Amino acid sequence: MKAFESKKSGRGSKIVVLVILVAIVGAGFVVSTLTPAKGAIGVGDNPYTRPYPMKHGYWKHQEEFYAFASGGQQGGIYVYGIPSMKLLSEIPIFNIDPAWGWTLANKEVKEMLTDPYTGEVVTTGDTHHTILSRKDAKYDGRWLFVNDKKSARMARMDLDTFRTKQILWLPNVNGGMHGFHSGPNTKLLVGNVEFEGYPEKKIRDYLNIPIDKLKGPYVSCVFGVEVAEDGTMKNKWQVWGPWQYDMVRVGWGAMDGWFINTAYNTERSVNTVGMFKRPEDYVFFWNIASIEKAIADKKYITSDEAPDVPVIRWKDVECYAAPCPLNPHGLDLEPSGRFAIVGGKATTIVRHIDFLKVKAEIDAKNFVGEEFGIPIISGDKTSGDIDAGLGPTHIEFDNEGYLYAGFFVDSDVKKIAMGGPWTKKHGKEPWSIVDTIPAHYSVGHLLVPGGDTAEPYGKYLVIMNKLTKDTFPPHGPLVTECHELVRIDQTPCPLIDQMPLPPETHYAQAIPVEMIAKKTKFIYDMKLPPKKPNVVYDYGKKEVHVVMTAVRSFFIPDSFTVPEGWKVNLTLTNVEQSYDISHGWALCDHDVMESIDPGETKEIVYTASREGVFWYYCLWFCSELHLEMRGRMIVIPEKEWSRDLEWKAK
Amino acid sequence: MKAFESKKSGRGSKIVVLVILVAIVGAGFVVSTLTPAKGAIGVGDNPYTRPYPMKHGYWKHQEEFYAFASGGQQGGIYVYGIPSMKLLSEIPIFNIDPAWGWTLANKEVKEMLTDPYTGEVVTTGDTHHTILSRKDAKYDGRWLFVNDKKSARMARMDLDTFRTKQILWLPNVNGGMHGFHSGPNTKLLVGNVEFEGYPEKKIRDYLNIPIDKLKGPYVSCVFGVEVAEDGTMKNKWQVWGPWQYDMVRVGWGAMDGWFINTAYNTERSVNTVGMFKRPEDYVFFWNIASIEKAIADKKYITSDEAPDVPVIRWKDVECYAAPCPLNPHGLDLEPSGRFAIVGGKATTIVRHIDFLKVKAEIDAKNFVGEEFGIPIISGDKTSGDIDAGLGPTHIEFDNEGYLYAGFFVDSDVKKIAMGGPWTKKHGKEPWSIVDTIPAHYSVGHLLVPGGDTAEPYGKYLVIMNKLTKDTFPPHGPLVTECHELVRIDQTPCPLIDQMPLPPETHYAQAIPVEMIAKKTKFIYDMKLPPKKPNVVYDYGKKEVHVVMTAVRSFFIPDSFTVPEGWKVNLTLTNVEQSYDISHGWALCDHDVMESIDPGETKEIVYTASREGVFWYYCLWFCSELHLEMRGRMIVIPEKEWSRDLEWKAK
Repeated sequence: MKAFESKKSGRGSKIVVLVILVAIVGAGFVVSTLTPAKGAIGVGDNPYTRPYPMKHGYWKHQEEFYAFASGGQQGGIYVYGIPSMKLLSEIPIFNIDPAWGWTLANKEVKEMLTDPYTGEVVTTGDTHHTILSRKDAKYDGRWLFVNDKKSARMARMDLDTFRTKQILWLPNVNGGMHGFHSGPNTKLLVGNVEFEGYPEKKIRDYLNIPIDKLKGPYVSCVFGVEVAEDGTMKNKWQVWGPWQYDMVRVGWGAMDGWFINTAYNTERSVNTVGMFKRPEDYVFFWNIASIEKAIADKKYITSDEAPDVPVIRWKDVECYAAPCPLNPHGLDLEPSGRFAIVGGKATTIVRHIDFLKVKAEIDAKNFVGEEFGIPIISGDKTSGDIDAGLGPTHIEFDNEGYLYAGFFVDSDVKKIAMGGPWTKKHGKEPWSIVDTIPAHYSVGHLLVPGGDTAEPYGKYLVIMNKLTKDTFPPHGPLVTECHELVRIDQTPCPLIDQMPLPPETHYAQAIPVEMIAKKTKFIYDMKLPPKKPNVVYDYGKKEVHVVMTAVRSFFIPDSFTVPEGWKVNLTLTNVEQSYDISHGWALCDHDVMESIDPGETKEIVYTASREGVFWYYCLWFCSELHLEMRGRMIVIPEKEWSRDLEWKAK
Repeated sequence: MKAFESKKSGRGSKIVVLVILVAIVGAGFVVSTLTPAKGAIGVGDNPYTRPYPMKHGYWKHQEEFYAFASGGQQGGIYVYGIPSMKLLSEIPIFNIDPAWGWTLANKEVKEMLTDPYTGEVVTTGDTHHTILSRKDAKYDGRWLFVNDKKSARMARMDLDTFRTKQILWLPNVNGGMHGFHSGPNTKLLVGNVEFEGYPEKKIRDYLNIPIDKLKGPYVSCVFGVEVAEDGTMKNKWQVWGPWQYDMVRVGWGAMDGWFINTAYNTERSVNTVGMFKRPEDYVFFWNIASIEKAIADKKYITSDEAPDVPVIRWKDVECYAAPCPLNPHGLDLEPSGRFAIVGGKATTIVRHIDFLKVKAEIDAKNFVGEEFGIPIISGDKTSGDIDAGLGPTHIEFDNEGYLYAGFFVDSDVKKIAMGGPWTKKHGKEPWSIVDTIPAHYSVGHLLVPGGDTAEPYGKYLVIMNKLTKDTFPPHGPLVTECHELVRIDQTPCPLIDQMPLPPETHYAQAIPVEMIAKKTKFIYDMKLPPKKPNVVYDYGKKEVHVVMTAVRSFFIPDSFTVPEGWKVNLTLTNVEQSYDISHGWALCDHDVMESIDPGETKEIVYTASREGVFWYYCLWFCSELHLEMRGRMIVIPEKEWSRDLEWKAK
């Protein structure tokens, strides 16, 4: 127990040893060893002992939560189980991933990855903030949203298929979107643009504040996205102002009807050092109804790029600023919606801001100043500080009145008893540190299942570390990430597992298995009867339209001819009705590769650019005849082509 | 222990229960529970019990092997630990993966992914056969090779950096490469082209056998790749003939100087059903010296596409055929190099062919027939069959004289005691089944560490299942793969763990941790001093050359200007000298994203296609000032550009 001999947790290890010894002499011990089950307490009070030999499907019965973690520069979403910490799936979004059927040859995918404002296809992304949809500020298991920081895009995944169904692009900005969060019923999503921009002249003129293209300063915006009943996202409004915005939370409970966000660069600088000049920055409080009123009152313009999206001035809506510790990053809302918790990442301070007090100051119009017309609320009257450690990053919450704050420099997580009404629940000194959980190393985001909702599930904490170093065997200069699973329904909080995961997750959320498992789709609904396999030649457009089916172990048709240089438009249906019988379609010597699941139809578009015989083949080892599941595209030079060479039904 | 109540393994579970009960009353039990260590036998004789709380770095000390698994349609390599079954790293190869610094904006990567014969960039691939380099037919830890089936490419990864260093394209074919294996000292790699092709006229004429572009039949080849001392691959020869080839093994020991491969489509058909018409197919035995002699004797032509690669006729080299069960897939060589084991995947037969007997027949010129001029060896005289189960796929070996054959239809692995000299070692009846290991489900490839070498490490077996179905919680119609870890140094062989992994691994190999860990690079060797940050404008070529450094938490320069439409050529160096301090470089609203590790330099090329202010930013949360680690590319319309706007050193 070397790792636990440190001062911080030495006490904890002794307690655990004692519990183990007690458990060993317990009569129930033998039985529980032989029949480990979900939640059973077995050997040495270790609820995570697994059977040996292992039983088939063991992990399935152990899983309590699905975790959805943004992949960062990987561009998609990782799905893993808690407490197994095993990677279950990946959801491709802003990346190319033929293993999950996500390529530019796929017509639907290419359309989603095409910027409607520039026409450019962008196949790389930087996923940051996952948003599980919610009802009454609690997860409801309908959708998962996530944003791409690099290109300012947002995606919606359906949680019955675990696949991306929509990508929405943000107009008027050149990327750099950061925070992203949902209202309590996922009718409104709010996003922040972190990187200051130089928008089109119409917007610059409307804002009427100093902007210099070469030297800065620039301007930025917070924006709203409307979510329809079927999940369809639509850009609803943008509020532009002098500052950039980083993290955002849309309020519930005590903060219903408001959202809050941070700006770490209130200096409006364009370089690293300049962004640290002020001793404190701001948390902003925005009244959502005031934005809707500005639109109703026609207090907005629209840009040439997006004539349907209202662009509103910051000073035409109700917004207030409160001081916050230097260069904040983590900004989170505790379950009752009353206390906003913010960490100044270049300080040792975690600040709790009481929205009831903020509201009282607003109602009394009691301000200590203004900047760019935004009233400033007294920090002394509305907040308190915890001097908790170096480099506070993100904050999550359990259901017992504790917050968990990660510290990048200290490489630990502080478990802190909250004040206000929570004091009665946990009985600890308000805003006091009750445990220090070591992390390995340099904590970024945290995940507590439901930890950003009105009713956290608690029990587990996942620490998403930014550095891993020597935690796993060496594997070259680029090091895997490390997610650490910790049990938090006891103090001290024991480490359960360390999980390597490809770089680099930012935020993650977790939802109970039963909320998703019961609604999962196993087979797509196939339109019956499926289209009859066919090949049609369009000599006007120089296009071949191929309708093809896939079933163990045949593609029908198993060959077709096409004149060189023509476009091929292939409609491919997997007519299987068996779970897990996916097929692939790869075209040799072409950049074309797809995956089609049972009952699914996909449209594949490419050019038959070179003459020759090119096999297409199944990518999934679908039966013992899988290798033989292949067919031929025969490309004939146009000058050798005649209608006699057309494919004909046998 | 429900999963083990089946007939097959019921006996095993009772033994395990007994061992558990014995262990519980043992005196050493308490101590081993409290201080679990590598290889320690703890609770219930479970060597895989882990401590609770877990210690930091626990898994690192548990790992015995690195496993390298081809990603199939994922396009790269997965690296995981055995026995942790945790994903440690990914090696991008034929795919785009900015998380690991592998994109088309990277000059070196784009060059590697460009087909030298067509000029086309191919960003999707289907990795199949991993090859760990070897010395004296044992792994030596220098390199890892793998092939892309779709585009007939091969890649070499260096095992000090875990990164791809070379991609070699195969000329004269339109993709469809399958088997790939190494000679005992990795000076020669041999590859098979599975998909029959219609090569250029020069080759067709030289072969002088019936070939029809539209209807088939076609021809195919086996080929040799020379590996230089520094690992550089070069196409060495191609032997073309009437058949396609699937799996290949280059011999050692008793089979030194020969390689063997299979053809499942000796029918030369172009459709699935036609490929199953013959009751048996062939295993071919090729003499390597005879190929070298054909080249020395100038018995070859070269194609217009690849004037430096000898194209040899099958009948100008020494090649023999032996009958093999219908539509073989698995073809493997046991550790002494004497017995080739082949499974007819559409049968129940696993056949063992004694090369000593084959050699005797060859030396006596004792043949039972010929086809296309290839002498056919008697199967009766040289081989024996094991009627072992439905759908035999691949075969691996341990160091105790057992082979492990996977069965796709039966969904199990048979542990079979081998005959010949091995009988003395294990004392079992030769070629008899000693254990049936259940698999979940439909076994494809198998992995025993060192299982394709002269000295397998044994101990573990990984079953790579092609179907997973209900093994893990549901996650939509596309199901994860399942790798099952089994202990094989005891019989019955117990299941240790089930690991989900993204689709779809084909072959995998494993090498002891100590062989790789001791040579791993942590930081790249940086050329000192690094180039001074600078921006140079080339008005003739309309190119901007930017030299930039990255260090916590600055890019220098932190801004540069460029005329609209110009190409940007960025040389970026991470000047960090600390392990795990990687930086990223993402350019907002452009398809540009890179990762640079400590000491590394990369060349990034893209076009500044639109005017505006575009931030570039670090992708790795490298310090508490990471968010502020950003800079601006300011793109000015050409008509507004003047030399005054050029970037100048401050």
